[in-house]
Amino acid sequence: MKFSIERAVLVKAVSQAQSVVERRNTIPILANVLIEATAEGVSFRATDLDTEVVDRAPAQVERPGATTVSAAMLNEIARKLPDGSLVNIASDDAAGRLTVQAGKSNFSLATLPREDFPVMASTEYAANFSAPAGVLRRLFDKSKFAISTEETRYYLNGVYMHVAQSEEGPVLRCVATDGHRLARIDAPLPEGAANMPGVIVPRKTVAELRKLLDEDDAAIAVSVSETKVRFATATITLTSKVIDGTFPDYSRVIPSGNTRKLEVDAGDFAKAVDRVATVSSERSRAVKLALDEDRLILSVNAPDAGAADEELAVAYADDPLEIGFNAKYLQEIASQVDRENAVFLFNGSGDAALIREGGDTSAVYVVMPMRV
Amino acid sequence: MKFSIERAVLVKAVSQAQSVVERRNTIPILANVLIEATAEGVSFRATDLDTEVVDRAPAQVERPGATTVSAAMLNEIARKLPDGSLVNIASDDAAGRLTVQAGKSNFSLATLPREDFPVMASTEYAANFSAPAGVLRRLFDKSKFAISTEETRYYLNGVYMHVAQSEEGPVLRCVATDGHRLARIDAPLPEGAANMPGVIVPRKTVAELRKLLDEDDAAIAVSVSETKVRFATATITLTSKVIDGTFPDYSRVIPSGNTRKLEVDAGDFAKAVDRVATVSSERSRAVKLALDEDRLILSVNAPDAGAADEELAVAYADDPLEIGFNAKYLQEIASQVDRENAVFLFNGSGDAALIREGGDTSAVYVVMPMRV
Repeated sequence: MKFSIERAVLVKAVSQAQSVVERRNTIPILANVLIEATAEGVSFRATDLDTEVVDRAPAQVERPGATTVSAAMLNEIARKLPDGSLVNIASDDAAGRLTVQAGKSNFSLATLPREDFPVMASTEYAANFSAPAGVLRRLFDKSKFAISTEETRYYLNGVYMHVAQSEEGPVLRCVATDGHRLARIDAPLPEGAANMPGVIVPRKTVAELRKLLDEDDAAIAVSVSETKVRFATATITLTSKVIDGTFPDYSRVIPSGNTRKLEVDAGDFAKAVDRVATVSSERSRAVKLALDEDRLILSVNAPDAGAADEELAVAYADDPLEIGFNAKYLQEIASQVDRENAVFLFNGSGDAALIREGGDTSAVYVVMPMRV
Repeated sequence: MKFSIERAVLVKAVSQAQSVVERRNTIPILANVLIEATAEGVSFRATDLDTEVVDRAPAQVERPGATTVSAAMLNEIARKLPDGSLVNIASDDAAGRLTVQAGKSNFSLATLPREDFPVMASTEYAANFSAPAGVLRRLFDKSKFAISTEETRYYLNGVYMHVAQSEEGPVLRCVATDGHRLARIDAPLPEGAANMPGVIVPRKTVAELRKLLDEDDAAIAVSVSETKVRFATATITLTSKVIDGTFPDYSRVIPSGNTRKLEVDAGDFAKAVDRVATVSSERSRAVKLALDEDRLILSVNAPDAGAADEELAVAYADDPLEIGFNAKYLQEIASQVDRENAVFLFNGSGDAALIREGGDTSAVYVVMPMRV
């Protein structure tokens, strides 16, 4: 294998690939990136056995071939080479070395045979469709904060992407919850997605996917089977196993009968919650919301450290209500609300609250109360 | 105690004071800041028993007094209040509370009595002088990287500030070393400093001092005794115990007979060292320098991971030499060199090297070789 590649192209491709490599590996070859050079160009492939990313890049290929080399080291070398260099990469299979040369810098890196690299088996996908990057970004960005970190509830350690019926018809829906709060985000159903099985996309895959979604209008090819999901741009393919479990029936926890309606500026609300929560200790960050006509008083009482309260002008015309929430959960939800206007719907002080962006029901959040 | 203070003024004063507070305290009051309001304004005092900082700020004082309150909490509250707010602070000594009010936010914080706060005893200083902030910044910034982190060699855990005789006459000198490398930085001796005792300024104090030195031309009042050192701007006073130990006779480790002279662009050199060091493991980051006429080849050989070399055009007219150094030490020293031109003076491959900035001897570095 022998090829030349621009340093900037190499940096981009390798950094994207190496980000799926786990820092601590018991299997040495999983620390490596598989480099494959063909007449069409070069690809960089990395995997943690659950997630695989393949990054294709243009290169001048003189001699096709393939080998594997430390992903972290190749990434670091590429980053440190001078901007604008042309990088010459060649493998010496007999010596088990890869040489990297640019300007007056020469590197000779240990390789492991390509045959030992675990390439993910190909799958037949039940559904293939295309979605704009901006749409996928909204679906995952607005839901991922609610992913559970409890390993015992592994079926909550991801975002449940599935087809659902909303009031406006069928939608592509992402849901995440940790049992304390929930996010349900809808997007118009892309053509060809109707038959996709519902899948739980793992947290790590959601994070990797995010890197593919920076350009709003880019078309992302999505493929879904019962066991795998694949997202592809023109140059990057991210394939991941999905979580083998059943996502709970979330619709039962979304309150439908909440009638007490609070409208508040989402930014002001988040900042006020942050301020009053300062006095409470890390563990029990409970904020009390006391609602009265067009007035909200947020308060925190931490016997050891002190107390804090703040008044906000809001729109509220129902019976007075006192209800407590985890401060962090309130802030995280408020920071998801893009529009100024956050709408809270409450029932009693022991019941879950529903939060929306204005009148829009395509992004809905639920948060459980805390006793205060 | 009762006063009003601008939010920005409060943020600056409290953040500066609270930075000396240690995160983990067994003595509760050391987590607090002592607030003292007098007719002249307000001061914020914090200490870890070794270092004390007092920050004075203008305020409208309605009722003089003093109390202590959690430094971290007051700092966080001040930061989170809206920009431009006027903050009203009052103590309720009977209730043991401090109230902080701004806009519609109210905080009530637990206090501890001012009498329990350990104020550092005043000292008679042997020397008092004034030095421009820019001069002190250079002395400490260029030497602190060499401070030892070995706790058993506590007398190396700081910068040795003292009066010395250089070739150009008496100077104010800062020296730091960890036994592997050494930095010796000189500045013209300020008036009134001639009688100061040499003191070892602890690492933490050096870091705190740095925050006082941002304005080049500001005059810093320096006071030194056998046991304490004090640095003061118009509004901040930093007082610190010095390390109770004897700094070793560093002059013996500064080579005077090195004659093989290498001149190299400091930036290019640092980058090349960084690149070739990529292939070596963390522990034994040895870089070999092979010098020949006007040519330097840097190389690293890490049997497991690979090898790297890079050639640099340099000025060198002496006998060929091969010598090894710790890559990190070389980079740290090269990054201290302000001018393009770094001068290395070598003797044999088992001898310490001396590094200067061009012909200037007011900043001198020494680094011990490694076998390669």
